[in-house]
Amino acid sequence: MTSAAPAPSVPAVDADALIFDMGRRARAAAAVLARTPTGVKADALRAAAAALRTGEAAILAANAADMARGQANGLSPAMLDRLKLDPARLAGIAAGLEAVAGLDDPVGKVMDVATRPNGLELSRVRVPLGVIGIIYESRPNVTADAGALSLMAGNAAILRGGSEAIESSRAIHAALLEGLRAAGLPEDAIQLVPVTDRAAVGAMLKATGLIDIIVPRGGKSLVARVQSEARVPVLAHLDGINHTYIDGAADPAKAAALAVNAKMRRTGVCGATETLLVDRAFADPRPILANLLDAGCELRGTSEIQSLDPRILPAGEEDWDTEYLDGICSIKFVDGVGEAISHIADHASHHTDAIVTEDAEVAERFLAEVDSAIVMWNASTQFADGGEFGLGAEIGISTGRLHARGPVALEGLTTYKWVVRGTGQTRP
Amino acid sequence: MTSAAPAPSVPAVDADALIFDMGRRARAAAAVLARTPTGVKADALRAAAAALRTGEAAILAANAADMARGQANGLSPAMLDRLKLDPARLAGIAAGLEAVAGLDDPVGKVMDVATRPNGLELSRVRVPLGVIGIIYESRPNVTADAGALSLMAGNAAILRGGSEAIESSRAIHAALLEGLRAAGLPEDAIQLVPVTDRAAVGAMLKATGLIDIIVPRGGKSLVARVQSEARVPVLAHLDGINHTYIDGAADPAKAAALAVNAKMRRTGVCGATETLLVDRAFADPRPILANLLDAGCELRGTSEIQSLDPRILPAGEEDWDTEYLDGICSIKFVDGVGEAISHIADHASHHTDAIVTEDAEVAERFLAEVDSAIVMWNASTQFADGGEFGLGAEIGISTGRLHARGPVALEGLTTYKWVVRGTGQTRP
Repeated sequence: MTSAAPAPSVPAVDADALIFDMGRRARAAAAVLARTPTGVKADALRAAAAALRTGEAAILAANAADMARGQANGLSPAMLDRLKLDPARLAGIAAGLEAVAGLDDPVGKVMDVATRPNGLELSRVRVPLGVIGIIYESRPNVTADAGALSLMAGNAAILRGGSEAIESSRAIHAALLEGLRAAGLPEDAIQLVPVTDRAAVGAMLKATGLIDIIVPRGGKSLVARVQSEARVPVLAHLDGINHTYIDGAADPAKAAALAVNAKMRRTGVCGATETLLVDRAFADPRPILANLLDAGCELRGTSEIQSLDPRILPAGEEDWDTEYLDGICSIKFVDGVGEAISHIADHASHHTDAIVTEDAEVAERFLAEVDSAIVMWNASTQFADGGEFGLGAEIGISTGRLHARGPVALEGLTTYKWVVRGTGQTRP
Repeated sequence: MTSAAPAPSVPAVDADALIFDMGRRARAAAAVLARTPTGVKADALRAAAAALRTGEAAILAANAADMARGQANGLSPAMLDRLKLDPARLAGIAAGLEAVAGLDDPVGKVMDVATRPNGLELSRVRVPLGVIGIIYESRPNVTADAGALSLMAGNAAILRGGSEAIESSRAIHAALLEGLRAAGLPEDAIQLVPVTDRAAVGAMLKATGLIDIIVPRGGKSLVARVQSEARVPVLAHLDGINHTYIDGAADPAKAAALAVNAKMRRTGVCGATETLLVDRAFADPRPILANLLDAGCELRGTSEIQSLDPRILPAGEEDWDTEYLDGICSIKFVDGVGEAISHIADHASHHTDAIVTEDAEVAERFLAEVDSAIVMWNASTQFADGGEFGLGAEIGISTGRLHARGPVALEGLTTYKWVVRGTGQTRP
């Protein structure tokens, strides 16, 4: 054959055929992983961590190539920062693999067991989901994190990283393959889609029967496209329009500290509070507003709120439905927990919503009636995170209602089977 | 307006607008149901059972109208039998409602609880899924069964019954509404789609955000349409291509009894065995084959199997992928549990597969490696049923891998929320 090599940006492959082939190989690998002992999966991850460390120079060189291309292509400073690897970040990725290797393996756990009157013993046993598709953008660490979580829960992974980070992702993927080989596991257990065109994403989204669940990791436009096009189930959240409600019975010091932390600790994370609801019965909200303003937060309030501080801008109707992901906060008064609950029902994205109060009865009503993946009492919404929840890591946070809700880690990447043990019972 | 009334089969409604309106009302009802105590839900079901009994004459008259129309339209005897109600069947439906009223309510159950080092207390609490859409055909009892299960798990239901049974479904639905009113619950908690055209089904299948899950109850063509068109998640099984594998170490008497029961007890149910795999090491399969033949089963075997009994017909390649739902069984020899497992991996529909053996090690390998919703050892595949599993009832059996697998009852109609209780913790 003497044909010219295809240009990297216009790969000469049929995306459907490519994903079909990768999916078939992933399913075969998944059948092996489903019966791989915990220790072997952990060994693969520890060997991959070691390969990341010994391969540091090559990985940083690949990342430098991505960075140079990104700078030439005019990527924003924020995107370049997400793309960038350095020795400390790479060490963090390697340590992350080892942390996942140390997590409790859900596979094989017996969820419940019962013996029927006819003597049949029924149990539900956790088994891997199968094949996880992860579609992400410019963060090269997702290659390692998502690949590791999928593997530890006994699943095969098909990773489709963004073009901006493709050289870095390939270099990290090579280390994962080294880990798989070292542990005697099939290389098809963690596959990286070799092309970065959008057709491969489309093919993954419709690969029912080959891919069991798609996890998009990236900005809102990626998640929205995945949610609207996918035929495969999707585990994701589109928005984190989160509320902190300060009840009339809130402790003023706690309320001030929680409001500032929930909004300003990190403004770009999905657990950040976007709207503050303040009970008209709360004694004096002015110190809270001043705290936020002093912390550099832009406040947008109703006219009633604006009258409390001249620095507060007017809020429009759209503010109640906006995820700022920035140092901006919308604020309004409500008449007690009932109105707070209805405002949240109308405007929240069912991600994380919190109440600040010393009144346990009011708190329990809020926790029961607010229909969000995570509801909190006297805690910062910024805790919405698998690591903070003690899950060891997270593949994502789901605002969907099926399968898994809130932070999803190893258990959410499993399903169960019913195991029935008998002694020859026939059904009458 | 003087326009003529529309013909009943071409309703003058916009299906999307109709389902949107029903969905909005269902969501509002679901918010009420989510905080309705167990006793009130149970009261509604018991009152509905009483209304079914006092309304017997009206319901049977409605059913007689459906039956007359069905006979005139040339429905098959099997369809007419599914459609038919009589006092005994109606009493069974009423008793079914009372049985669901007595089930353990999953809503509010704490799945797990943990305290983090920072003092945050995290728990996962079961909450209703929200709105369940049920699409069914000619069985009027589904109106009561599915409505009751949805309600007991705190969900609103949108029921779309087939045109053949619409008068019967309306009459049963009226009894459910009586029960809801008696318990002070919103009538929108169980809605029956007033039209029977296919457009309403299409509108339900794409009602994301309004309907949380669709459960199709009916024949394969209905399930296939729902699975291929739905944007809303679907809980269903398309096929029950189930296997019973008779291992070399099987007890011959158990094997014979299990084979006949698994295949012939009821041939039209999704848990019926369709293929028998026999280990070449099994001493003498002839009595098993004779038992099946004597029970009226048509056997289709490989030439090797055919040589054992002149009454056995030849099996073609398609037989290994056919759900007969009839008194027909395909049979082949395999070399031990390994080949049985690979045959099942290639041909099963991941519903229910069983092994017959006295060798515990071989059995445990089969239970671990066969990737089906239900795996059984020395038991008849006909036990694949929510009632037999002690769930009290079932809304359906799922061969999907997400959310719920196998027989699904109340727990499968719930999700969970994370409840975080703090004392003012902010995230560092």
